[in-house]
Parts: sequence; C-alpha cells; structure tokens
Amino acid sequence: MAIPLFGFHLLFLLSFFASSPNAASASGFHLPSFKSAPVFPRNHANGPPNHKSYRYETRYFSQVLDHFSFKNLSTFQQRYLISVEHWSGPSRPIFFYCGNEGDIEWFAENTGFVWEIAPRFGAMVIFAEHRYYGKSMPYGSKDAAYESADSLSHLTAEQALADFAVLLTDLKQNLSAENSPVVLFGGSYGGMLAAWMRLKYPHIAIGALASSAPILQFENIVPYETFYDIVSNGFKRESVECFNAIKQSWNEIDDQGQTANGLTYLSNLFRLCRKLDSPQELSDWLSSAYSYLAMVNYPYPSAFMMPLPAHPIKEVCTKIDNQPNGTSNLERIFAGVSIYYNYTGEVDCFDLSDDPHGMDGWNWQACTEMVMPMSSSRENSMFPTYGFDYASYEEGCLQSYGVRPRPRWITTEFGGHNLSTTLKMFGSNIIFSNGLLDPWSGGSVLQDVSESVVALVTEEGAHHIDLRAATNGDPDWLIEQRESEIDLVEDWIENYYQQKAALFDM
Amino acid sequence: MAIPLFGFHLLFLLSFFASSPNAASASGFHLPSFKSAPVFPRNHANGPPNHKSYRYETRYFSQVLDHFSFKNLSTFQQRYLISVEHWSGPSRPIFFYCGNEGDIEWFAENTGFVWEIAPRFGAMVIFAEHRYYGKSMPYGSKDAAYESADSLSHLTAEQALADFAVLLTDLKQNLSAENSPVVLFGGSYGGMLAAWMRLKYPHIAIGALASSAPILQFENIVPYETFYDIVSNGFKRESVECFNAIKQSWNEIDDQGQTANGLTYLSNLFRLCRKLDSPQELSDWLSSAYSYLAMVNYPYPSAFMMPLPAHPIKEVCTKIDNQPNGTSNLERIFAGVSIYYNYTGEVDCFDLSDDPHGMDGWNWQACTEMVMPMSSSRENSMFPTYGFDYASYEEGCLQSYGVRPRPRWITTEFGGHNLSTTLKMFGSNIIFSNGLLDPWSGGSVLQDVSESVVALVTEEGAHHIDLRAATNGDPDWLIEQRESEIDLVEDWIENYYQQKAALFDM
Repeated sequence: MAIPLFGFHLLFLLSFFASSPNAASASGFHLPSFKSAPVFPRNHANGPPNHKSYRYETRYFSQVLDHFSFKNLSTFQQRYLISVEHWSGPSRPIFFYCGNEGDIEWFAENTGFVWEIAPRFGAMVIFAEHRYYGKSMPYGSKDAAYESADSLSHLTAEQALADFAVLLTDLKQNLSAENSPVVLFGGSYGGMLAAWMRLKYPHIAIGALASSAPILQFENIVPYETFYDIVSNGFKRESVECFNAIKQSWNEIDDQGQTANGLTYLSNLFRLCRKLDSPQELSDWLSSAYSYLAMVNYPYPSAFMMPLPAHPIKEVCTKIDNQPNGTSNLERIFAGVSIYYNYTGEVDCFDLSDDPHGMDGWNWQACTEMVMPMSSSRENSMFPTYGFDYASYEEGCLQSYGVRPRPRWITTEFGGHNLSTTLKMFGSNIIFSNGLLDPWSGGSVLQDVSESVVALVTEEGAHHIDLRAATNGDPDWLIEQRESEIDLVEDWIENYYQQKAALFDM
Repeated sequence: MAIPLFGFHLLFLLSFFASSPNAASASGFHLPSFKSAPVFPRNHANGPPNHKSYRYETRYFSQVLDHFSFKNLSTFQQRYLISVEHWSGPSRPIFFYCGNEGDIEWFAENTGFVWEIAPRFGAMVIFAEHRYYGKSMPYGSKDAAYESADSLSHLTAEQALADFAVLLTDLKQNLSAENSPVVLFGGSYGGMLAAWMRLKYPHIAIGALASSAPILQFENIVPYETFYDIVSNGFKRESVECFNAIKQSWNEIDDQGQTANGLTYLSNLFRLCRKLDSPQELSDWLSSAYSYLAMVNYPYPSAFMMPLPAHPIKEVCTKIDNQPNGTSNLERIFAGVSIYYNYTGEVDCFDLSDDPHGMDGWNWQACTEMVMPMSSSRENSMFPTYGFDYASYEEGCLQSYGVRPRPRWITTEFGGHNLSTTLKMFGSNIIFSNGLLDPWSGGSVLQDVSESVVALVTEEGAHHIDLRAATNGDPDWLIEQRESEIDLVEDWIENYYQQKAALFDM
C-alpha cells in the first residue's frame, strides 16, 4: 500500500528558497518549480476524521465573501460545529475555536482540551471552520474556490477573523447570549488567529489561548534559522550520532544522484513506488519527515498525522543508531524514517508523487500574507544549508499563482516588532502556550509580557500538545500546564463578570 | 451672488428617513429621492483653503487599493502633508492626523492645535488624506473613482485605516524613526478613525485624541433622537421663543406650500434664486442650517464652514426674536437663517440647487458602513417629527448607489455595545473630547472609561473646537481643556519611553 503525502504538497521551503551558492554547488541543488512554503501539521487526507468522539451539531452560516469592501456581495456558507450540551444558560461562557487551514471536524477531534473543560465552565462550544477549507467553500465547491488567483483572493486571515466576528455577533444575539464572555482557542495557525482576534476584536472575545502560535515568524523578528535549528536540536538531544548521520546524508544522496544508476539505487533503497526524478525529491521527503517528527514529538503514542510511538524522534534515532555494523548511512536513514512513514508496517512502497499544480490553501496564504522566512544554517542545523531569498520566493509565487506576496503586511496589520511594548501598554488576556520541542515555538511568544499576557512554556512539549485530549500517559508538566490555563481562563471570566456588575455600561 | 450648498448635498436624513405617518400627514411630507445621510461639517467648496497658514511639504505614497484581499492589486497615490520642521530627531514623536471626508489641506488648516503643540514635543507632523477625497483618488481621477458602486467599493473606514498603518510603517522605516511614538489626532469622522486606529493598531500608535467622534452613533447604542434633540436644546437654551418659532415654522411652510401661489411666495420670501419645487426643499435647507449652527456654535467669530459671528445660535435667535411687531413668523425665520447663510451680506439670492445624482463620498459611506440612525422626537425637538425607518434607508441606497448597507458591521468590526467593559479591560490611551453644544457629542464617549481612556467634556464647546487654533477669544474652559490634552499626551509619550527603556523588547 502506498501512502499519499498528506493530501497536498509537503515539500519544504528548503527546496524552494535555496539561494546560497555554496549549498547549491555542494548539493547539486536546483531550484524546483514552486512547491510549498513550510506548513503546519495537517490532516492525512485533509478530510474529516473517521470517527467522532465529541457530540455536536453541524450548522452553516451565510457570510459575505468580502467584509472590507462593497464590491463583491456574494456569500458563502461557513460551517461550524456547536454544542450547547453543557451550556448552563445565557451569560455563561462561549468557548470558540478559531478554525485553521483544514477540515474543522479534524480540529474538533484533535482539540479534546476544549471539550473536556467545557462542562466545568458551563460553556457552549463552537468550532468554526476557516473559509476556503473543509466544507466552507466560496463559489459552491472547492474546485470553483481554488480555480484561480481571482477566486482565491479572499482567502486571507483578516477575512477569516471577520467571519468569526460576524458569526459570534449573530450567534450571541440569536441565543440571547450578548453578555456571555467568549474565550478563544486555537492551535498553530489557529492559535495565531486566536491571538490576533483577541487583539483586533476585544469587544467580541475576552481572552485567547493561543497554542503554538508563531505570530513572530515574520520578516526578521526571529532569526531565519530558528525553525530548522529547533528541529535539529530535537535530534541532537537524543543522539549526536543520529544528528550527524542525518547531516551527512544529504551529500550522500546528492552524490548518489550524480552516478549512472544513482537514482534507481536510491529509489530502491528507499522503497519508492516510482523512480526519483532528482535527488532533491528524496531530500525533500526526508526533510519533511524530520520537521513533522519534531512537531509531533509527543511523550505518548499518537496518530495526529501518522500513527507514531511515544517520543518518536528518540525512536527514529534509536533505529538510525542501532543498525548492525556494516549498515550504510543511507540504509540507517531509511530505517529511521520508516518509523515516521511506516510505523504500522503496512506500506509496500512510498509514493512521493503529488500534483505540482494542484492548489493548496496554505500555499496560497504563504504566497500572499503568510511569508515566513526560513533558512538552514551551516552551524546548528542538520539540514542542507539554505538561505532565504525573497526574490525567488516572490518569483515562485508569481509563477505558481500569479500573485505577488506582501511580506510586510502581517506585521503592519497585526504587529510583531516590539511586541512586548505594545502588549504591555495595551493588550490583556492572552496565553501563548508553547512546547520547546516544537520548531514553531521559536516564532512564538516565550516570555510573559504582562500580568495577563502570559507565556506558558514547557521544555518537553511539542506542537499544541496542551490542546489535545488528556491521556493516561500525560506527564506532570502537561497536567500542570493545562491547570494553569484553566486557572487563567477562570480569572478572565470572573473578572469579566465583576466588571460587568460594577459598570453602568454604555 | 448665489452661494452653493457646500459643494454637495446637505439635505438631511430628516428629508429621507421619514416614516412616521403622523409627520407625513401633518406636514404634507413626501419621500424625496435619496439625498443624503446626516453629514459632518465640511469644506465650503470641498477644495483646499485659499491660504496656507502652516508650512509643510506635500507628498504622495503608493497604496494598494485593497489591503484585505489579493484580487485587486491596482494602486493609487495617497496624498499626505508632512513637516519635520520641529522634529527633534529619530525616536521623537510623530503627530499623525487621520484625514477624514474631505481635502486634507482644509483639515490641516482647521486643526491648528496640532501645529501649535508640535514644537514643544519636538514632533513631526503628518496629515494624511483619506482615500477617495481631495487628491487621493483611486483610478486616477475623481470622475473615475466615483463612477459606480464598483469603483467606489473600496471606500471604507477599514481600508482607510490600513492606508494609515501602511503609510506610517513605511515612513517610520524610511526615516529611521521606528522607535518614534505616534500620537493620532482626528476630529469628527477623523476622530472616529483616530480612536479606531488606536484600538486596531496599538502597535503603530501609542494613543489617540479623538475629538467629537461619535463612535456610538450606530444601531441603537444611543437613542435615535439624540442628535436633533441636542440641536434643539442649543436653540432652546438661548430662547424658548426662538425654539418655538422654529418649531412652528414647518407647518407654516407646508401650509403655504399647499396654497395656489404658496411656492412662489416662499421662494420670494426666502430670496431663493429659483422657485421651490416643494416646501420640503425649503425645510431641508433650513434644517441643515440649524444643525450646522449647532456644530459650529463657537464662542468667537469663525469661518470654519461659513463666516459666522461668535455664539451664532444666540445671534440667530436674537434676530428671530427681535423683529419689529407685526413681522410674520416666516419672516423672522428668514432673518434668523440669514445669519448663517449670509452673514457677510453679500448674497443676492440663495441657490438651493444641487445635483441629486452627483456622487458624494460621505453619502456612499453612509450607504455602506456608516449607518447612523436618527429620528426627531415630538417632545424635545424643534424639527419636524420623523422616525428612522431602515427599510426606506436601504431602499434609498439601493436606488441611488445599487448598494445594500451593512448596518451592523461597524459595531462588529470596531465595537460599541458595552464599550466601557471592553475598553476598561483592554484599551488604553484614548481621549474622547466633546463639547456638549455639538449635536454629535451625544454619540460619543462622555464618561471616563479607565485611567487612560478618558472623556474631556466641556459644557460650552462645539464640534472639535479643541483642535482649532488658539485665538485671543478662547475662554478659560477651552484653554484648560487643551492643557489637559497636552498633559495626557505627555504622559503617554513619557510612559512609552519608560517602557521601551525598561524592556528587553522582542
């Protein structure tokens, strides 16, 4: 059985944004046609989960396609999931998950924390789908919505936030819940949306839990190398040998790729379903696995994206390190990466093919607003050395989508530079939670900004692990992190009710 | 010489939104074709002032037409006025005026306060023009920009705020002024923009002086009758006889209009250049004058819109009250209103004509986002009794512009309901300044929200008088109000520098 590569492209910006002449010459690297920006974890098949653990109703809400101009008054149906099962009545809280780049049912399924804490708050639960994902398609279908740059043009974070604001305003009125405090939740890009929504719509939501939200991964706010350095450190901390084996493998792959039957050899060695077109294809496939492994490096077995054992990076490195004497380095690499791509052992061959012209929502967003520059450094990274080159990035976007990115827009619209000063003087009630094993943590907020804009950081956490359902295998630090989150949310809500009671409100 | 009626339509929503059957039958009132929503004061000829009191450079900045989608990448040139004459160098303050619905030079000329205080702050001064006004025209010309609903579609407050944000971000970078604190200023609609900008872009501006900014004049946040009740009280406080004379005049005008030569009689009596088509035309013209008189009811002679004496309402009422015995009520009314329309005595006849199909930017905004419901009550108002009827409003907008308003959008995007709770928990550094003589004050914030979101209210002030240049005739309360504003701005700036210094900022 061949497994698809997560529905859409997973190739990393590594393969796209290379600009270092050194890297190019060292690896025989060539610029492929535009593939993909770095992505957050996403659903295997980009569809709904196979089973539903939580009870909710599925509803649709009519949204205008363009909230910020009056040109296009066409509407679309936004899907949202709602449960009032534990809602203890008007003025009681509303927990609102800011849907990110995928099917909302999958996020609902993988955000057990919200479902689990709702009863003790007497809270309504809403999971709102992000426009252009799942079933929330403008123009009636995904094919139509993704047809062109023109049809995709309203896929932006600002429009998505406005959708959430309009939906919440309408729901609160229809449910006579105008006085209900709304608490936002979100992980990854959804966490960015939650934080931004609290900043932009404080009249609609009283606070936000933004888990693994790299809101600073723009322009030069954090060093370009951060992401891949963190991935690399995740391997190095398990085993320096493992780190070195991976670091050494890229040249071996490239060298093999140059030989007469090198691509055939590599294709067989890595058990690919079809012959490689270039060594780069293989490098991308491996890079992708390492990055995802860092994101989902959870302390218990999980199947967030792939079925994986607990501490999967440790498992990968154990495989790489503990092959019999005489095993070649690339054979070790294959053994290691099989933990990621084939933990269940059911895969006969690996299918690298994807459609380079297929349109993917997140790629569109990366080519418009979500320009997150990343490099791979010679010193600390186990990945091939690459430097971010905006000119190539832009050129790739123009070629692929006919759109020119606006790399400075996100920080203009939402801030980012000097975040501490701004939020200390202005904002309140945001939790930035991060696990330091998660490569996205480097682009997030890791220090308290003020009494109510706080950072909850765990050494051993990975990508928004705090939002996942509790398990028997939860370590103490995770249990404590979630307790802190609950305490803070309780404080926000209590404070809100007190303010309401004290004020003769306008 | 005939004077034009302020460039575009000034007819009030009174004439448009009438829905009360009583009013209609009592006044023979008919629904005219769509004219205009209530407007803020505006420039006589909608052009630049005749003379320039302040020194600045005029520059242009290239803006994208649509910040929130990637469909339309066309750009336009935004005009801004800039003076670095008193700027004492990088990291020193930037005073930024948020341009409103008119030529920016006119606002610069009428906002002397900013120019006068800049030297003591060592501040740069910028006046940025609002898109679709003055010389900041998309599509290259006003004719092209105002051609259709399609071309006007990007005339929204959110796009204008994004223009300001992009302009400021770029300017700060080019001037190496990234650490300069930006303080926003604005009056009337510009004051709304200043307040909203502080709320939406706290990372760009550290505070806002929002003068006469009716950010609560939406939906049902304040009673519909507020505006016309305040105008009426402005007359009643000067003279109950005057108030009654005006209140009585509407029926007299309508009654005259019903008689055989009534319209000719009225046209002659009010010295109009052409014969009235309906009594309503005359009522609108008079209503308009009373409302503007309330806005510019300043304690010294001014020429903000028209050359006027100090305390113009008192002057109008003195004229109305002190006509010789035997003067008819309508003759008194004419004598009174001549203070407003003909204080210089140079007008031979009054020209009521305007082009009902001419497109006016503010009318467009009123037909899209800026839906400010207003009524005129039987009890407290001297105006004809009218009730706001949204259905007619919408119908008028559809007929005139082919656009359907979104009456709930502004409060969804910017808040308004429960403002105190929201801003107490979140915002900071906003001054809402108002004079209670100004009819727009009823839709603004008149009570302190928190320590740093404060209301400065003067009993005797009119429409953003605090932003005007100091005069020898300034009363003590006005001098004190401006001192309070200066103190608060100083505090913001000092606090900002302290935070900057104390923080290892991200």
